[in-house]
Amino acid sequence: MKNKNEDLHGNVPDRFPVALLIIDMINDLEFPEGERFLKPAVKAAQQIATLKRRAKDLKIPVIYVNDNFGRWRSDFREVVQHCLKDGVRGQPLAELLYPDSDDYFVLKPKHSAFFATTLDTLLEYLKVERLILTGISTDVCILFSAKDAYMRDLSLSIPADCVAADTVAHTKTALEYMERVMGADTTSSARLNLPELCQNPVPAQEKVSE
Amino acid sequence: MKNKNEDLHGNVPDRFPVALLIIDMINDLEFPEGERFLKPAVKAAQQIATLKRRAKDLKIPVIYVNDNFGRWRSDFREVVQHCLKDGVRGQPLAELLYPDSDDYFVLKPKHSAFFATTLDTLLEYLKVERLILTGISTDVCILFSAKDAYMRDLSLSIPADCVAADTVAHTKTALEYMERVMGADTTSSARLNLPELCQNPVPAQEKVSE
Amino acid sequence: MKNKNEDLHGNVPDRFPVALLIIDMINDLEFPEGERFLKPAVKAAQQIATLKRRAKDLKIPVIYVNDNFGRWRSDFREVVQHCLKDGVRGQPLAELLYPDSDDYFVLKPKHSAFFATTLDTLLEYLKVERLILTGISTDVCILFSAKDAYMRDLSLSIPADCVAADTVAHTKTALEYMERVMGADTTSSARLNLPELCQNPVPAQEKVSE
Amino acid sequence: MKNKNEDLHGNVPDRFPVALLIIDMINDLEFPEGERFLKPAVKAAQQIATLKRRAKDLKIPVIYVNDNFGRWRSDFREVVQHCLKDGVRGQPLAELLYPDSDDYFVLKPKHSAFFATTLDTLLEYLKVERLILTGISTDVCILFSAKDAYMRDLSLSIPADCVAADTVAHTKTALEYMERVMGADTTSSARLNLPELCQNPVPAQEKVSE
Repeated sequence: MKNKNEDLHGNVPDRFPVALLIIDMINDLEFPEGERFLKPAVKAAQQIATLKRRAKDLKIPVIYVNDNFGRWRSDFREVVQHCLKDGVRGQPLAELLYPDSDDYFVLKPKHSAFFATTLDTLLEYLKVERLILTGISTDVCILFSAKDAYMRDLSLSIPADCVAADTVAHTKTALEYMERVMGADTTSSARLNLPELCQNPVPAQEKVSE
Repeated sequence: MKNKNEDLHGNVPDRFPVALLIIDMINDLEFPEGERFLKPAVKAAQQIATLKRRAKDLKIPVIYVNDNFGRWRSDFREVVQHCLKDGVRGQPLAELLYPDSDDYFVLKPKHSAFFATTLDTLLEYLKVERLILTGISTDVCILFSAKDAYMRDLSLSIPADCVAADTVAHTKTALEYMERVMGADTTSSARLNLPELCQNPVPAQEKVSE
Repeated sequence: MKNKNEDLHGNVPDRFPVALLIIDMINDLEFPEGERFLKPAVKAAQQIATLKRRAKDLKIPVIYVNDNFGRWRSDFREVVQHCLKDGVRGQPLAELLYPDSDDYFVLKPKHSAFFATTLDTLLEYLKVERLILTGISTDVCILFSAKDAYMRDLSLSIPADCVAADTVAHTKTALEYMERVMGADTTSSARLNLPELCQNPVPAQEKVSE
Repeated sequence: MKNKNEDLHGNVPDRFPVALLIIDMINDLEFPEGERFLKPAVKAAQQIATLKRRAKDLKIPVIYVNDNFGRWRSDFREVVQHCLKDGVRGQPLAELLYPDSDDYFVLKPKHSAFFATTLDTLLEYLKVERLILTGISTDVCILFSAKDAYMRDLSLSIPADCVAADTVAHTKTALEYMERVMGADTTSSARLNLPELCQNPVPAQEKVSE
């Protein structure tokens, strides 16, 4: 009997209502404004690393969505190696957030994690209802990704201490916008009740009225 | 001054009017019908390997578009290693078509090379007008990809000796269909005039009447 | 309280596990091969009209997905009027399948009903699991649409008497292909058990093994 | 000889490097916050109406991209009639911006003009390089659409007097964001040099460095 989704060859990925996205943190920061990003990005990376450990204890899938930096020919692991080995500015980020072998990877060619990537299909198979967005920068790749998640009716947690931009003002304005327009929860990571989120990924008041 | 496409960080990929796609040939063939695929796939792989060398002499970009076999967590290079090292049925394919370091990779989650992948964006940046489609299987992933290429107004060469399916009849019917409906050129690879294709990727009679 | 999907302003469309698609049947047939299409298309239209009445008795949503014939500036109702009023070859099709005021409309710019259209979003809101595909032509727009539906894991019924092409052979080959590759059920419309399909849109043997 | 793009049946739409988008202005404003939108939206509509006349004198294509307000079953012309005839709050908008018979229409199901619509395909056929975005609301549908346009490498003019939101502050913050992040030109409509834009849709300093 013909099996649907034969291309997945039975390896249907895990199902989970919540996923943790780590966006563009495997990053050499070797671009003109990279210097300004370094300090806030490292601070966010420390928080994300802790959040990631708590997430994995609960079996929440962790998905690295990362810019390919024009390196259409390389794999994500090569990007990781480049960030660890080549004496680049972003080395501490790769050290703090070194991917585990059971993390998911999605390479993105543009700002949004959803644009021309497999993310949509992956989330559908995982049956994800809420995304926890983390990474850089709050006002570009995080905001662009949040917008695309929102149009797909995904609920959003964007812990304020797990995102960074080149200035504090840019992060603040972007977080306020995502709270107001997309109903994002920006509670900082330490106060994020992950077990509760897994039980109840879409709080009642957010549900579509019918 | 703000540079457009900042995410590509200046590493805009090459531009070329023709691209060679190698679809699902890095493949362990470890599925029930894999046995039937082995012989025709190896035969196609030999032709594709020759065609690939000719293409690279002309700087035609080579793009591996490959199933992730449910391995959302692995990179393409890991899939290659699995096919070379684990004593799998498809080992000869990976040996014949071992990717070069300057080849492009696109992981696809479903049948079509375009569905939920970065291929569309990559081809747009490369300014590709004609695709040379090769790989397996003629009647599923090649046919699904050809349809999506055709809807994007890309011209198609599908050399009859560089594709394979589980039966000769399935390949024959699919090739006839792609010739008739999508205007695909199925000239076998030895007779494909690559320098001419690069000069003239869209023959006059195929051009849109206006 | 912020309502998700605010753009739908509370008018969430109906939910139904099955939908009937009528593809490209509002058609003037005023193109070179149109003459060859007329007779088989009218025959299919008669069967579709009957099937549509049965579907509507069961509240199955009916979705017209129609080529815009380059008329980016017109609405579907104008296309309907053109087919009814201007003495065109396809007039009998529009008479047999005149849309009801509660039918859905999706204009498509290319061959597949899914390419650059709202269909995907509409089906998601309707929670559709099985599509009944009808219309013309079996080997182009029906086949292209079936492929895109299949990649989205939708189950397919394509009643053999409700589709048409320019030749009987083209319809026959396309139906066999969709049966074999996509697991489509091509049972003719009279024998289609619609109440059963609504109860059980994805038969057990088609379900994804997990 | 098979003609590419057969679905367009020779009616390839006009080509033009610039297009004027009018987003969600055919709008009954019959939602809770609609009262707050009325005055700023009417003011923007007056400016858009003047800009539209100037655009049409230069043959710049005008594209209405409009929410379907959950009315999946209606056409755009019906939405226009509803706004003109039913004594709704948004009637002055429809009067000021009554669509001409040669304007283009795109119905959108979600916030962005690009999400699950034909807009991308239409702009590609028109060969548009710069969009002039107008309409409501600056901080939601305009901003979401601008992001998607920017990821497609389209240049943006967003005249500050041709957009509106529920508060002046929301418009101001959104315009500053689109200027900074997407390089949008927010010059007010009276000072927009349309003939110059048509000659030179992508100013030199915006071009991709290679």
